Amino acid sequence: MPLPGPPIGIRPTNPAPEATIATTNRYVVIRQRPKGNPAVEDFSIEEESIDAVPPGHVVVRADTLSIDAWIRTTLDDGGFHEEGDLGSTVRAFGIGEVIESASDDLAAGDWVYGMLCAQTHPVVPASELTKLDLAPGIEPSAYIGPLGLTTGLTAWVGLIAVGEVEEGDTVLVSGAAGAVGSCVVQLAKARGAKAIGIAGGPAKCAYVVDELGADAAIDYKHEDVAARLAELAPEGIDVFFDNVGGEILDAALDNLAPAGARVVICGAISQYQDLNNVQGPKLYLRLAERNASMRGFVVSHHAARFGEANQEIAELIRSGKLALREHVVEPIDNFPQALLMLFTGGNTGNLVVRP
Amino acid sequence: MPLPGPPIGIRPTNPAPEATIATTNRYVVIRQRPKGNPAVEDFSIEEESIDAVPPGHVVVRADTLSIDAWIRTTLDDGGFHEEGDLGSTVRAFGIGEVIESASDDLAAGDWVYGMLCAQTHPVVPASELTKLDLAPGIEPSAYIGPLGLTTGLTAWVGLIAVGEVEEGDTVLVSGAAGAVGSCVVQLAKARGAKAIGIAGGPAKCAYVVDELGADAAIDYKHEDVAARLAELAPEGIDVFFDNVGGEILDAALDNLAPAGARVVICGAISQYQDLNNVQGPKLYLRLAERNASMRGFVVSHHAARFGEANQEIAELIRSGKLALREHVVEPIDNFPQALLMLFTGGNTGNLVVRP
Repeated sequence: MPLPGPPIGIRPTNPAPEATIATTNRYVVIRQRPKGNPAVEDFSIEEESIDAVPPGHVVVRADTLSIDAWIRTTLDDGGFHEEGDLGSTVRAFGIGEVIESASDDLAAGDWVYGMLCAQTHPVVPASELTKLDLAPGIEPSAYIGPLGLTTGLTAWVGLIAVGEVEEGDTVLVSGAAGAVGSCVVQLAKARGAKAIGIAGGPAKCAYVVDELGADAAIDYKHEDVAARLAELAPEGIDVFFDNVGGEILDAALDNLAPAGARVVICGAISQYQDLNNVQGPKLYLRLAERNASMRGFVVSHHAARFGEANQEIAELIRSGKLALREHVVEPIDNFPQALLMLFTGGNTGNLVVRP
Repeated sequence: MPLPGPPIGIRPTNPAPEATIATTNRYVVIRQRPKGNPAVEDFSIEEESIDAVPPGHVVVRADTLSIDAWIRTTLDDGGFHEEGDLGSTVRAFGIGEVIESASDDLAAGDWVYGMLCAQTHPVVPASELTKLDLAPGIEPSAYIGPLGLTTGLTAWVGLIAVGEVEEGDTVLVSGAAGAVGSCVVQLAKARGAKAIGIAGGPAKCAYVVDELGADAAIDYKHEDVAARLAELAPEGIDVFFDNVGGEILDAALDNLAPAGARVVICGAISQYQDLNNVQGPKLYLRLAERNASMRGFVVSHHAARFGEANQEIAELIRSGKLALREHVVEPIDNFPQALLMLFTGGNTGNLVVRP
């Protein structure tokens, strides 16, 4: 999972004075460090009243929160990403509507994207939010979907900027029925590549082929991934976009193209339960044998290409070539259950919480 | 270990007729598959008389054979490189002098480089040998040393073509007192980089700093590699040239520069004893966190740049900036002992056998 990094902020110029408001915020707190998969008892749901808005801040009505694998890593001490303290609000990106502003840069009614965290009414510095400048035909929800930093932009950067996909390439995607994977499959097809998705169970595999348009899908729960890859990609994989790690990464390494393949490390959801004991790729020497590379990325480091990415994705959305099914969990109290669902493979498409 | 691949051959044009000769060839045969490190009893020494030279072939007096880590992998069934059959002659690159020729492309007295294998008098198709075209100031031995395919050229391709070293980079090299590592240290310094070598024991570390010119050396047998790296490269490693794998690879991954580092996988000598149970890099997710890449290479795939490499290395040899200490084992009967020495860290510099 690439570090999302802070969104590109709007700098406050003339901080407005403090504003008053009477609203209740309901939020999800880290109660204890999860052992393995996150469990409901690792969290508590709290409530606070918001009476004042500090200068430069805004109050947002969180509309939709994105449930991403990187969130799991912030629950550990010294995890993959910066950890969240015990007692702090669980981190999450989301979109929402400003309902009260003490900033000259945002006004009530503006839609914003940013680190809203797991809560109904985040109070956030305006400088840490991105105002959504909606193009024709694009809904706000696209910004935690096909145009989201941790979803569509991550897919675009990984496949195109890092993976350097080319027309005619064979692209393999793990976690293909998830939010990032779904976008990768569709972007690969739009770029003229052959796309093979790996997902868990027949329903997800059908989604990957029938709705996303992959050329084939491999059900890792019921099929031998390495054997199926040898059948489906006899000339080898040119780009492997990995969200999963573990055995699936090794199966892909064993089926790389003879030369020049790119293994893009986006995440390793199979390994986030215990980041101190990650299963490293046993077959990493295939990189040497096959003149291949394994490339990691931090999506925010590629911000220079976000404009290009946004344009390509927006056009694909408008022409009906890129869509992302939402798997909605409500309300905020079920945020912990949604997070658990991500790790047990319960969702198909983009898993989100409507607080 | 990059696959060396066949040397660039000289194509026979008008095959000369068979020639006669009376010579004895002494050679080393694979008797059984080694368990773990190769042992003397895994090999046998055989003798045969050479009475005739088939058309297109030459008889070579093997002068010097290169003891390289990849040889170990050919001793296994289905190893990293193509395996050698039981009863076949152990593979090895070497240089030698043609003593009898049944080819119009090579004549007695010519010096050649190629897959001579572990024997005193290889009979080889002329098309599989490279005639040494010695530049002024360059000895034939340079072709299994600083200019050798599996030594100097491997170092150049890995550091420069694959690792894209730049002036000011911090370069880390494992196996720094070995043949490839010694060349990498000197090439890195010549390119204006800071060079840190990892080697086993104080004598090798002294060689790496005093003779090769590294800025620092880490003794992996007596020091905590990760802790020393944090001290020696506080801003992180830009290029890690890895010949070793295992814990050392993880220590380096944990100390990569914050962005853009290149981990060049040349070999994994710590893992060749059991290629079915390689220890994969547990910290491979650092690639994702730090926008880094891990790049494997097959040296022969970069043949287009050998001319450039040869020129740079030859100039460095002439100006005294690149030299490689030879560690000579004699005669051919001690080839198995030499191979074992490579895996127990007994050599400093370029380990060779004079048959």
